[in-house]
Amino acid sequence: MNAAVEYLSGRRSTSVDELLEFLSIPSVSSLPEHEEDVRLAAAWAAERLRSAGLEHVEILPTGGHPVVYGDWLHAPGAPTVLIYGHFDVQPVDPLELWSSPPFEPQIRDGRIYGRGASDMKANLLISVLGVEAVLRARGALPVNVKFLLEGQEEIGSPQLPAFVAANRERFACDLVLSADGFQWSEDQPQLLIGLKGACGIQIDVRGAKSDLHSGLHGALVANPIFALVGILSSMRTPEGEIRVDGFYDDVRPVSNADRAAIAGVPFDEEQYKNSIGVSELVGEPGYSHLERSWARPMLDANGVWGGFLGEGVKTIVPNEAHAKITCRLVPDQDPDRVIETLRAHVKRHAPPGVTVEVQAAAVRAKPYFIPPDHWGNRLAGAVLTELYGRRPYLTRAGGSIPVCEIFLSRLGAYTVSFGLGLEDENIHAPDEFFRLSSFERGETAWPMLLERLGEHRP
Amino acid sequence: MNAAVEYLSGRRSTSVDELLEFLSIPSVSSLPEHEEDVRLAAAWAAERLRSAGLEHVEILPTGGHPVVYGDWLHAPGAPTVLIYGHFDVQPVDPLELWSSPPFEPQIRDGRIYGRGASDMKANLLISVLGVEAVLRARGALPVNVKFLLEGQEEIGSPQLPAFVAANRERFACDLVLSADGFQWSEDQPQLLIGLKGACGIQIDVRGAKSDLHSGLHGALVANPIFALVGILSSMRTPEGEIRVDGFYDDVRPVSNADRAAIAGVPFDEEQYKNSIGVSELVGEPGYSHLERSWARPMLDANGVWGGFLGEGVKTIVPNEAHAKITCRLVPDQDPDRVIETLRAHVKRHAPPGVTVEVQAAAVRAKPYFIPPDHWGNRLAGAVLTELYGRRPYLTRAGGSIPVCEIFLSRLGAYTVSFGLGLEDENIHAPDEFFRLSSFERGETAWPMLLERLGEHRP
Repeated sequence: MNAAVEYLSGRRSTSVDELLEFLSIPSVSSLPEHEEDVRLAAAWAAERLRSAGLEHVEILPTGGHPVVYGDWLHAPGAPTVLIYGHFDVQPVDPLELWSSPPFEPQIRDGRIYGRGASDMKANLLISVLGVEAVLRARGALPVNVKFLLEGQEEIGSPQLPAFVAANRERFACDLVLSADGFQWSEDQPQLLIGLKGACGIQIDVRGAKSDLHSGLHGALVANPIFALVGILSSMRTPEGEIRVDGFYDDVRPVSNADRAAIAGVPFDEEQYKNSIGVSELVGEPGYSHLERSWARPMLDANGVWGGFLGEGVKTIVPNEAHAKITCRLVPDQDPDRVIETLRAHVKRHAPPGVTVEVQAAAVRAKPYFIPPDHWGNRLAGAVLTELYGRRPYLTRAGGSIPVCEIFLSRLGAYTVSFGLGLEDENIHAPDEFFRLSSFERGETAWPMLLERLGEHRP
Repeated sequence: MNAAVEYLSGRRSTSVDELLEFLSIPSVSSLPEHEEDVRLAAAWAAERLRSAGLEHVEILPTGGHPVVYGDWLHAPGAPTVLIYGHFDVQPVDPLELWSSPPFEPQIRDGRIYGRGASDMKANLLISVLGVEAVLRARGALPVNVKFLLEGQEEIGSPQLPAFVAANRERFACDLVLSADGFQWSEDQPQLLIGLKGACGIQIDVRGAKSDLHSGLHGALVANPIFALVGILSSMRTPEGEIRVDGFYDDVRPVSNADRAAIAGVPFDEEQYKNSIGVSELVGEPGYSHLERSWARPMLDANGVWGGFLGEGVKTIVPNEAHAKITCRLVPDQDPDRVIETLRAHVKRHAPPGVTVEVQAAAVRAKPYFIPPDHWGNRLAGAVLTELYGRRPYLTRAGGSIPVCEIFLSRLGAYTVSFGLGLEDENIHAPDEFFRLSSFERGETAWPMLLERLGEHRP
């Protein structure tokens, strides 16, 4: 391992140049005019895998942007790890807020600025460099390695579930290592053990055939806004307790062990309130802030509209009112079942005089949870503890990263998140950057991790 | 009186020509480019008052469109009646839906088509013709008459309250006759005895300093939409019962006499439901449809909005949500007091974690009610009964016509509505028309009414 780290240390400026080259490809997956750039990034990644010593490198069609594959499978008896990453990036607007052009990466004050620096071209390259270094230093890897690098993470990986399911053999593995991740701070590592699922509905309430004069008709007909308001207020309290009949049925209770683990992570309430500009935090009674955020489901209204929205007064009974609702789910909730629960609840609470329709929204992700003592976590945790001199926090995220659940359900393998981003690095925003110190740390971390994983016997 | 009716009958074609001329003036009060046309209509009306024999005819400035005044005050001991009308009209769009140009009036199938025909140039001219006829036939009127013809009814008479208050002496009277009104049907007269008042508020709920990622923040902060929904659902049930603390305090109960009078007016539920396209009527429990519409207050949401209103999904906790609320008021509710009641209720029901603001809306009208047995109603009712061979229905309107309350509060005089429009005459819509048969009936009705009023001693 020392030899591997020395190898990387000896080619640092070359590695950074490679990263600058990779960052200069504007592989924006959401914009059709950059489709060819996404292909160029795929080709760049494939070539980099080859030069690192990976075998069977291929660019595979998915129906959308391509996937890059490569493997090294000469460690019989050792685990097979699938390293996941993506080479696509977010759009760059508002362009005028960038201090330097997003696809002309620059190094300033120990930071590499450019779109995709933190999310996640540096992390991707570090994982490849780690594999290359161990291979060069030892002539072999202690584990079997496969790479799955995709080009459409930033648009929600629409083709990935079917693609992985159709290529189960190729991607079969004991563990997924996602290079797309974050640490808690420069001094404090973390292991991400839970991600929420998601689903949603739109509620459409309709009354008369057109808006009505409120004076002539208001006392005689249902008002779709009040019908909608009645339905919504039956679904959740303003404080955040969900009142949808059956919603909590499949929710795995927060165990004492969960509470203890979550309580081990600090939460600075004042700093948090200041950062988002609220005077008071509000949430489900009976849980701490981080318990609510990490281990309890939530139901939110994302939008509501109906009737007259202009300046001034228009005395109508509107003939329509609508709401968009999304939920964040925890184990063992299933998004399809939750949608049916929501639909049944809304129908049951539809008042007379209006028609109420429920449409499932185009967001559906299962919750993901990896046991904190899973061997992948234990080994990654040992590496992080050695690197940082501190045990990692066991964290969860209120958001959803579908890929973890896709690998779990399609490949039967858990994902350990092992990335070196930090939360202040402006991902999805102007002046995205990545720290050179993180790059350096990653050059040590990945060889260490591969070694440790090689000690495991599945 | 026979002589008066004969006089009008002898000049019918002249009178109709006068109406066609009046209708050809495009006196659209809401459009600045027609300001001069409104002045022309004022001049036309003033000239017509003069030629009818009215005295002291004047065009008076109001700060907005002018008022036309004229009087005949030589009936000592007899009542003084103020005849109210307006010579402005609604805009004409959508122009392409008119069968003939709106300001080139045409007679087809016994109907006069043109903007302002039913609302209300025919009714205005009929009232003047009635006065002229009695004056010509008898050489004198049985009552003292004043005219107040305004040019901004269709924009809400913004200057009228102050104008009437500043001219109390000039307009002092025992009774107002509004020529701007409707009968129930061609065979059934009505007396309008009640109009609702109105007021409103906008509720603005604000949370964080910007929209938030619902996964990262939804479980920790108040959602302004659910905060708004909680407030709204505390204000009214979907069925229409108002739950605002104190809202009903000043509501005059529906008496047995009210119930009996209202029950005397037919309401065709099936026909009504079909006309507006609803399958079911919904309203405050414990009251009939017409009681709800005519004698009970209502609170409606006219618009609601907040968060993401586009296609698809955006998983945010929005940082704002808003609702527009208006109320229809009955005696003895006061719009200013109701606004304070609403404001106090909303503030009391504001949940934690958001700021809630209440703005009063730019609509404020007091309810109006004239006792059914008021002498003006008794005498007008007798005329209608004689004309139609049926006693008039005692009706009310769910809408608000501020002028009645303005005259009551500024002049201390009740308004009797005495117009001959019918509800199918497309007012405010393309192909507005007025029936020649109604014109003819009006030529009989107004001389009869003036005679009857002359018998009253104030």
